[in-house]
Amino acid sequence: MSNIRLVLMYDGAGYFGFAEQKEVPTVSGELKRSLKKLLGEEIPIIGASRTDRGVHALGQVVSFKSGSRLSANDYKGALNFLLPSDIRVLKAEEVGEEFHARFSARGKEYCYSIFEGRDLPFNLRNFSLHVRGGLDAAAMRKAADYLLGEHDFTSFAQEIIGSPIRRIDAIDIVEKNDPMGRVLEFRFRGNSFLYKMIRAIMGTLIEAGRGKKGPDEINEILKARDRKRAGATASPHGLCLIRVIY
Amino acid sequence: MSNIRLVLMYDGAGYFGFAEQKEVPTVSGELKRSLKKLLGEEIPIIGASRTDRGVHALGQVVSFKSGSRLSANDYKGALNFLLPSDIRVLKAEEVGEEFHARFSARGKEYCYSIFEGRDLPFNLRNFSLHVRGGLDAAAMRKAADYLLGEHDFTSFAQEIIGSPIRRIDAIDIVEKNDPMGRVLEFRFRGNSFLYKMIRAIMGTLIEAGRGKKGPDEINEILKARDRKRAGATASPHGLCLIRVIY
Repeated sequence: MSNIRLVLMYDGAGYFGFAEQKEVPTVSGELKRSLKKLLGEEIPIIGASRTDRGVHALGQVVSFKSGSRLSANDYKGALNFLLPSDIRVLKAEEVGEEFHARFSARGKEYCYSIFEGRDLPFNLRNFSLHVRGGLDAAAMRKAADYLLGEHDFTSFAQEIIGSPIRRIDAIDIVEKNDPMGRVLEFRFRGNSFLYKMIRAIMGTLIEAGRGKKGPDEINEILKARDRKRAGATASPHGLCLIRVIY
Repeated sequence: MSNIRLVLMYDGAGYFGFAEQKEVPTVSGELKRSLKKLLGEEIPIIGASRTDRGVHALGQVVSFKSGSRLSANDYKGALNFLLPSDIRVLKAEEVGEEFHARFSARGKEYCYSIFEGRDLPFNLRNFSLHVRGGLDAAAMRKAADYLLGEHDFTSFAQEIIGSPIRRIDAIDIVEKNDPMGRVLEFRFRGNSFLYKMIRAIMGTLIEAGRGKKGPDEINEILKARDRKRAGATASPHGLCLIRVIY
């Protein structure tokens, strides 16, 4: 048996998320279907992150075990031929048998992208949240700082299975000018994230950026451990899984 | 009668070009349909550029005359409500009755985008031509210089109606680094362009960039006035009409 690890990139717009579901297209479902065509049998696959419907990935990691004698490079070539063009295998390698895409992960990086301007450029439509204007990036920066470190993130989780304690190592905010406005990228790095946690944080940071919540209020919301205190869950299409850290 | 001028942005991926055609979705067809809903009658519209199937626009200009008392601002709001989300009115204004979107145009700017790298990032898939590597930007620059000024562009036109003489004022090449490779943007400015001319030029410049044609050969091709001498017509999805100059 060889243990294969893939790095996947995908445009999440056409999928009901990573996790397999009956009747609807999912990233995991497409990958299993392509692997079945290749290997002649259905094999279980493990994904590092269960990205939601509409969320993109530049560096999702998947692992699976197979008795086939295909080389890692064969997997890359064959899967890129079999998969739809909006899912690409960036890298395939054979790893030790103890490697597990989810349990071996030590951290993850996500990016949430906001376009601020009157009109959303056509090429950002599926990849950035559109905000017409008036975001105070400094206030968002100040609010985000309260979330760094290890906390109980109950206030920012849609659903908690197990511990609500997570550690956020960085929230970097990168500003890029565009002829039609500006792009604000929020780059999150942490050990792991609760279900819809980044999108709930983003919904809350946007309220801070609009002056609807003071930056200090983010700290109170965090301490309240009550999802109703935080802002709305921001739209998935601005979110992208950048990489998984092992 | 008021003469209305619109600046349109669109993602060309879903359309069979700007010009109206029966049975298939076109940008012009969508605009006429929305105007008919708004005004209750079908009115002729004039577009500055007949962008091809798959070509995008950040600044297409359209004009039409109407007896309606709607203000320019009403048109913008109503059309953005009625049009599909991949076609947006960026600006609407009332202009003098002599203004004609096509005949009043003095020049146009287009951008052709190439992504050079092993794997095309998911968010550039519909907007950049994918080239795996090995483009010599300096050779492309040198080749492009032969095309500046006024010339007979027969060698780069799929079809010529009237004169084949056009003037290219600038071909600026802008390099942008991306974590997965680099983006090369070719920004063309000229008085007007023949049918598929920019794409034929791009197909030829790519051959120069790959060393298949020497930069000096571009000059010979131009002088030959023979479409068969130039390179292939590059894919439309890398092309975008940036603005129309009046």
